[in-house]
Amino acid sequence: MRGYDRTTLSADMLAAVIVTIMLVPQSLAYALLAGLPPEVGLYASIAPLLVYAVLGTSRTLAVGPVAVVSLMSAAAVGKLAAQGTPEFLGAAIVLAMLSGLILLVMGVLRLGFLASFLSHPVISGFITASGLLIAASQLGNILGIKASGSTLPAILTGLVTRFGQIQPATLALGLLALGMLIWARTRLGPLLKARGWGETQRQIVTRAAPVAAVVVTTVISWAFNLGAHGTSIVGTIPSGLPRPALPPLDPSLWAQIALPALMISIVGYVETISVAQTLAARRRQRIDPDQELVALGGANIASAISGGYAVTGGFARSVVNFDAGARTPAAGAFTAVLMSIGTLTLTGALYHLPQATLSATIIVAVLSLVDLRALPRVWRYSPGDGAAMIVTIAATLLEGVETGIALGVILSIVIHLYRSSRPHVAVVGQVPGTEHFRNIDRHRVGTSSAVLSLRIDESLYFPNARFLEDSIYDRVAADPEIRHVVLMCPAVNAIDSSALEALEAVNAQLRDSGVTLHLSEVKGPVMDRLRRSDFLEQLSGEVFLSQADAMAKLAPDLTERMRRQPRRETSREEARASS
Amino acid sequence: MRGYDRTTLSADMLAAVIVTIMLVPQSLAYALLAGLPPEVGLYASIAPLLVYAVLGTSRTLAVGPVAVVSLMSAAAVGKLAAQGTPEFLGAAIVLAMLSGLILLVMGVLRLGFLASFLSHPVISGFITASGLLIAASQLGNILGIKASGSTLPAILTGLVTRFGQIQPATLALGLLALGMLIWARTRLGPLLKARGWGETQRQIVTRAAPVAAVVVTTVISWAFNLGAHGTSIVGTIPSGLPRPALPPLDPSLWAQIALPALMISIVGYVETISVAQTLAARRRQRIDPDQELVALGGANIASAISGGYAVTGGFARSVVNFDAGARTPAAGAFTAVLMSIGTLTLTGALYHLPQATLSATIIVAVLSLVDLRALPRVWRYSPGDGAAMIVTIAATLLEGVETGIALGVILSIVIHLYRSSRPHVAVVGQVPGTEHFRNIDRHRVGTSSAVLSLRIDESLYFPNARFLEDSIYDRVAADPEIRHVVLMCPAVNAIDSSALEALEAVNAQLRDSGVTLHLSEVKGPVMDRLRRSDFLEQLSGEVFLSQADAMAKLAPDLTERMRRQPRRETSREEARASS
Repeated sequence: MRGYDRTTLSADMLAAVIVTIMLVPQSLAYALLAGLPPEVGLYASIAPLLVYAVLGTSRTLAVGPVAVVSLMSAAAVGKLAAQGTPEFLGAAIVLAMLSGLILLVMGVLRLGFLASFLSHPVISGFITASGLLIAASQLGNILGIKASGSTLPAILTGLVTRFGQIQPATLALGLLALGMLIWARTRLGPLLKARGWGETQRQIVTRAAPVAAVVVTTVISWAFNLGAHGTSIVGTIPSGLPRPALPPLDPSLWAQIALPALMISIVGYVETISVAQTLAARRRQRIDPDQELVALGGANIASAISGGYAVTGGFARSVVNFDAGARTPAAGAFTAVLMSIGTLTLTGALYHLPQATLSATIIVAVLSLVDLRALPRVWRYSPGDGAAMIVTIAATLLEGVETGIALGVILSIVIHLYRSSRPHVAVVGQVPGTEHFRNIDRHRVGTSSAVLSLRIDESLYFPNARFLEDSIYDRVAADPEIRHVVLMCPAVNAIDSSALEALEAVNAQLRDSGVTLHLSEVKGPVMDRLRRSDFLEQLSGEVFLSQADAMAKLAPDLTERMRRQPRRETSREEARASS
Repeated sequence: MRGYDRTTLSADMLAAVIVTIMLVPQSLAYALLAGLPPEVGLYASIAPLLVYAVLGTSRTLAVGPVAVVSLMSAAAVGKLAAQGTPEFLGAAIVLAMLSGLILLVMGVLRLGFLASFLSHPVISGFITASGLLIAASQLGNILGIKASGSTLPAILTGLVTRFGQIQPATLALGLLALGMLIWARTRLGPLLKARGWGETQRQIVTRAAPVAAVVVTTVISWAFNLGAHGTSIVGTIPSGLPRPALPPLDPSLWAQIALPALMISIVGYVETISVAQTLAARRRQRIDPDQELVALGGANIASAISGGYAVTGGFARSVVNFDAGARTPAAGAFTAVLMSIGTLTLTGALYHLPQATLSATIIVAVLSLVDLRALPRVWRYSPGDGAAMIVTIAATLLEGVETGIALGVILSIVIHLYRSSRPHVAVVGQVPGTEHFRNIDRHRVGTSSAVLSLRIDESLYFPNARFLEDSIYDRVAADPEIRHVVLMCPAVNAIDSSALEALEAVNAQLRDSGVTLHLSEVKGPVMDRLRRSDFLEQLSGEVFLSQADAMAKLAPDLTERMRRQPRRETSREEARASS
């Protein structure tokens, strides 16, 4: 607060003006997308911003209604009540409340790491598919057709079967709004730049394009009284600020909504933290991921109490806030004040605003989320990750957002566990003339037929405990000459109790079949932990400080021979590839 | 087949006799535990053994009904139908069929690694809690009280409220059977050994103890006609072999039973594979985990078709089979033949067998599964694993087997992801007089204020991608002097697409704030994969072959100084602890 001077104040004020201009039509549009009355979108853009300004650690994050979470809210609430009923609104508010509580509890328990369960390909696929789904769902409003559905086939079927009901007036307004928005987004900036406009002025004008589209189409709608001729308009918006109230306390409703609330919380948090971190890093600022959970939780609870719905940190508006020069969280508080003024004064003027204009706003906003080029890029880098992305996209489009995100999370975890269940295990031998040991499949190295030396390139924990057992048993069973097994552990950072039991079993089984088990190059912390068990007393062999020590003791002939042989020249590249 | 001579034949035959003696009362008892008619237990001990003998890779594994799976079957089927009804039997058969199909599909798709999702502490806790639950559930039969329930509180409440209905005759028989079994298990062996009996003879006699208990209590029950005076007896068992039939084809039943079938499949498979691997390792034989899935799947399908219920590889009977000298899968086939003969001839004689005797058999068998001493041992080694074990035990006892195992699996995975989401990251500096780099928190090493060198002791994948970003941003934000960040990657075995995107983001953000990102000591396979992306072209800095190369280029002053200083003497122990 001390350093808050006039320069900072005016920077924050300017950013707030620009963000508010962008936020008014977006709030109305996203409320429409969530199936809620337009004022709910406005309410969700006031109290949450104030709470985030107090609790958040990002200086430039702008919270409020966003496209993907609005779609998820509509899908979750749509299963419990019909759109337009008080129950629908009540359920949406409960969803925000519960999501806020979940985020708050996760923050207090420092469970931010749970967001890591979503891999990037899954998030990227989910966002792309959601963008396509949202754009498709808004086509009906542009055409003047009542079409609904939560999956792509359902939406498209609805549009095709009702194709004859297209309303020319609505379509014309929708295309006009779409045209204005796309033109402002692609052409207006360069045009103004060519005329020598400054950065800030250009930004205000281009960000105001949605407002212009709103004004122009509203005026046309009013002039021709299109609302009375079948075009869907926003209609009466209750003016005045939201009055705080607790959401309905129906336990069965809360229980039904718990799982969607968890999913929305995680998706919202991932979006928030990604945006906040990206912007903070640009200015070498820090954010605290667990505190962000608390702040986002608080924002959602505030939204629910003030009659709003689920909110999260939006990418587009945060970048706008950042680019417009916001320096402190006060910018968010100023935005809230400006939104309140808008809510008090503008609602009457929005009566004739066509819903087609709002849908055009949504379509232009979400198509920037669609990134289909990521797919071939991810696929080329890792076919497994590419497959996870394809499955997430397909499931989201064909089965809806909840199935899509749930399947994505499960798939990420299964692929991860599959990979970590098969660590790289190499049989190693001694490089002549040195104390180095290398993979026998890649190098000319010396080995002893009585000693099997295995290097494990991974920590040992339950997903790979059985694989470790299998690897050792298979090799020992295949070669009756083996008398000693040495596990070389320089890359083993931890051994959990499952892996410890596996090692105990290996030790016991090998001993029963006349083979001794040794360890080498065990790290300090791992050794400390092993001392807490009785494994080291049970171990049939020894723990060697180095693999060379092990071979000197177990295969002295080989060591002698290796010492006499000159080291084969290995290029540096080869040495690196050998690991 | 070629090497199958008379010695092997007689060894297998002897093992079959011993296993059959053990299996007859156990099959009846476990059918009782599963809430099924006694003959279902016998049927489950015939066809599955033949199928396993053909498909299995373990030479000594004995499949059939086992305690934990019987309890799980009772819990799953009990939700859909009342015990004693044809629907209950039908559902149990569908459960076996579905579990068999799941195992078969997992085997064909080589999904054996899914069994790794169960960590040892969770399995151990689950088995211990199931043992306690089973023992408690059988107390009612010993006391002559009808008490049921699927959780410990429910069972104990039932026993306490009906305490006045104890039947003295049933209790006397139950205690007699319990006494005989415990005596045979603890005293008989040493007694016979002291009298100079041979190993095999001792084994036959001690294994026959349950048969003796069955005979003695059946004779008493028959002599006093206790069945007519309130003692529960086995009653009429249809004699004759099972007739093959398909299970009922009711889609809604199959859908309801799918999840329990999956759980039973995984638990059964884990038990089977653990036993098979332990026994195979003792004789340096190999088993194929994916083929075991196929074999166990086939055994369950065979069980369902021949009127049996879910089976798995039993620990006790496999060890008996192994110790009795079984050499080939033919021992299992011989057991099946002997069980068939038993089913054809013995059923009439078992009419008066008291259920209390079977319950005594179960109690003695399952108490050997209870291993409460594992808990302090695991806790001492790793409190996290200990907590997972406690939660699994508590959930199984208080909420039942399905909740217990489900919670255990989820908890294992969450703990694992939590651990892998926070890999060890060390800031490293140069050991004077060498090209070695060590953790600055543990060693006196040289660093440059403009260069941050981070060594990551873990592969980079989505659970730790965000942590990596946080770690770098936090350190760079805290120290404005930093101009270069070098990631030292000798322990990075893989970089998945999420981590690649995190690295791309780090590279871009650092570049925006005037810091250059470098990599050093990247492994060959990781480098190959990075070349498939455009990360290396985007990278603001370089990829150095060694950390020493990186420092020579980025901080030549420091390198010069380090070279002149003599290396501080570091003991070998210290060097090891340094990793």
